[in-house]
Amino acid sequence: MGKLHLENLPVSVELVRGPDGVEFRYIDERLLPDDLAMAATSDWREVVEAVKTLAVRGAPAIGLAGAAALALWAHSTSSFDGIDQVAYEIAHARPTAVNLQWGVDRALAVAKGAAAQEVPELLYELVKDMEAEDEARNRAIGANGAALLPQGCRVLTHCNAGSLATYYYGTALGVVYAAAEQGKIERVYADETRPVGQGARLTAWELSRAGVPVTLICDNMAASLMARGEVDAVIVGADRIAANGDTANKIGTYSVAVLAHEHGIPFYVAAPTSTIDRSIPDGSRIPIEQRAPTEVLPVPIPGVDVYNPAFDVTPARYISAIITEAGVM
Amino acid sequence: MGKLHLENLPVSVELVRGPDGVEFRYIDERLLPDDLAMAATSDWREVVEAVKTLAVRGAPAIGLAGAAALALWAHSTSSFDGIDQVAYEIAHARPTAVNLQWGVDRALAVAKGAAAQEVPELLYELVKDMEAEDEARNRAIGANGAALLPQGCRVLTHCNAGSLATYYYGTALGVVYAAAEQGKIERVYADETRPVGQGARLTAWELSRAGVPVTLICDNMAASLMARGEVDAVIVGADRIAANGDTANKIGTYSVAVLAHEHGIPFYVAAPTSTIDRSIPDGSRIPIEQRAPTEVLPVPIPGVDVYNPAFDVTPARYISAIITEAGVM
Repeated sequence: MGKLHLENLPVSVELVRGPDGVEFRYIDERLLPDDLAMAATSDWREVVEAVKTLAVRGAPAIGLAGAAALALWAHSTSSFDGIDQVAYEIAHARPTAVNLQWGVDRALAVAKGAAAQEVPELLYELVKDMEAEDEARNRAIGANGAALLPQGCRVLTHCNAGSLATYYYGTALGVVYAAAEQGKIERVYADETRPVGQGARLTAWELSRAGVPVTLICDNMAASLMARGEVDAVIVGADRIAANGDTANKIGTYSVAVLAHEHGIPFYVAAPTSTIDRSIPDGSRIPIEQRAPTEVLPVPIPGVDVYNPAFDVTPARYISAIITEAGVM
Repeated sequence: MGKLHLENLPVSVELVRGPDGVEFRYIDERLLPDDLAMAATSDWREVVEAVKTLAVRGAPAIGLAGAAALALWAHSTSSFDGIDQVAYEIAHARPTAVNLQWGVDRALAVAKGAAAQEVPELLYELVKDMEAEDEARNRAIGANGAALLPQGCRVLTHCNAGSLATYYYGTALGVVYAAAEQGKIERVYADETRPVGQGARLTAWELSRAGVPVTLICDNMAASLMARGEVDAVIVGADRIAANGDTANKIGTYSVAVLAHEHGIPFYVAAPTSTIDRSIPDGSRIPIEQRAPTEVLPVPIPGVDVYNPAFDVTPARYISAIITEAGVM
């Protein structure tokens, strides 16, 4: 492997004090890999829209966006009477990732425990703390996961659980970066991740910027690579982990997990503990977002239906370990 | 299910006597589903090019194209000295499907057994016979396969092994059409089949034209459907079957086979006996075509490699049965 350039990894979401007040800055990931463009807004509704349209995506990043949206709202209002309705709207921008609700809940708890005139500043500070925590958590996930990987490891990943899915550094790719700093990574295979292409547009781009050797494959090629003995570990992120360890993640994750199981390859989920939803006993209770058919088939074919779930659930029995900031489960 | 319209299925390749002599007519499948356009040529090199560029694809169809190309050559020359070289060029347009070599070999055997002046006409007649045989074989495959399917069957298929992959009717989809005529088919799930999209562009289009209910999915969604109990059988075609039953087919087929196995769903291969290559003991000896990275990633990302095998090999142990015109193995 050549030289690592982790300094090239972008911060993907951030609340900042701009010239016109507090604003949320984010990489509009719909434009990658062609354009690396930072967008900025002080309108909480635009943050919700960015989450719905996948301009901002990734469970940890949308958790931050949820808290930031409530902070922006607090900076734009003089009456906090409507806070529960606003929090509800933000938290329901997308249904599957529990981190969104978690981020909104943290902001809501701070707002409700403070005097009205302090709320805007306290929420700003909260989001800044959450950003720093996110990076620290990701680095801890990375260290915990890297310890599991062998020298010369060839990792397969699905979707993007990298710096672009978090504040910075990433969860599944955090493990890759930490292991790469230890000289353990030979190559990463990135599933392109249809229909939205997070693997092709985001993971491959992010890894190549960071100096990690990366090979892009179509989702249906993973089995062929595994059969050739070219994959030593699979590492993915998570959108929601049920109490029993069943894990919802990007559609196709379950497929990779079954294939890894069949080929005797360890299958790791890397996620912060905030992704664990202890209120749900197992994966059958995780709500699965259905998205527009046009994501799969931009020009409809008469008489052809489309099925487009954004996530699937991997039963715990296919997961070798869940890697969190608190350790490996 | 509504009314079937098998009369809407197109003939995808055909040798005909046109106003200017013998010509090869084919649907340029690169233009589907937007345009259903017949192309025609009397130049054997254009047939080879059509096979290489996937304008004509599908193992049985390229077997016919191979024989037709040699017939066109015979109609364009007065000396047959170069026939071995021409046959070699045609047979090597693509490496994986054994039917191409088989089609060329049949034409070559006829040509070598005849007087020179009779060769053009004999090859024309041979190809017409092969077309009729292809349809008869496909209908026999269909009948043999339909007997294996239950009432209300929901079939998942990968790539296109339909009328568009043969002269007419199809192999895997031939089974679907025969079963649909018996009222057995509830729905077909078509994998989109990245990177070339034969499932999205061809299978979904062909099934909807024929009046078979069809739902398009991304390749990575098959596992999720299986886990939900929505798939009763998987049926795919084949490009080459080794003596031990190992089967090369479109990339992603092996993945679907492993998933079907894990979910207890029967996995059927439907192919003419001409797809069986008894000279190869097992799948490890089947040559796998590697195609251009731009099929996967049209605009390269600096530093990102691409792996793009066009086929994979499914070991015989994952195959519930191979359905041929001669019966079910």
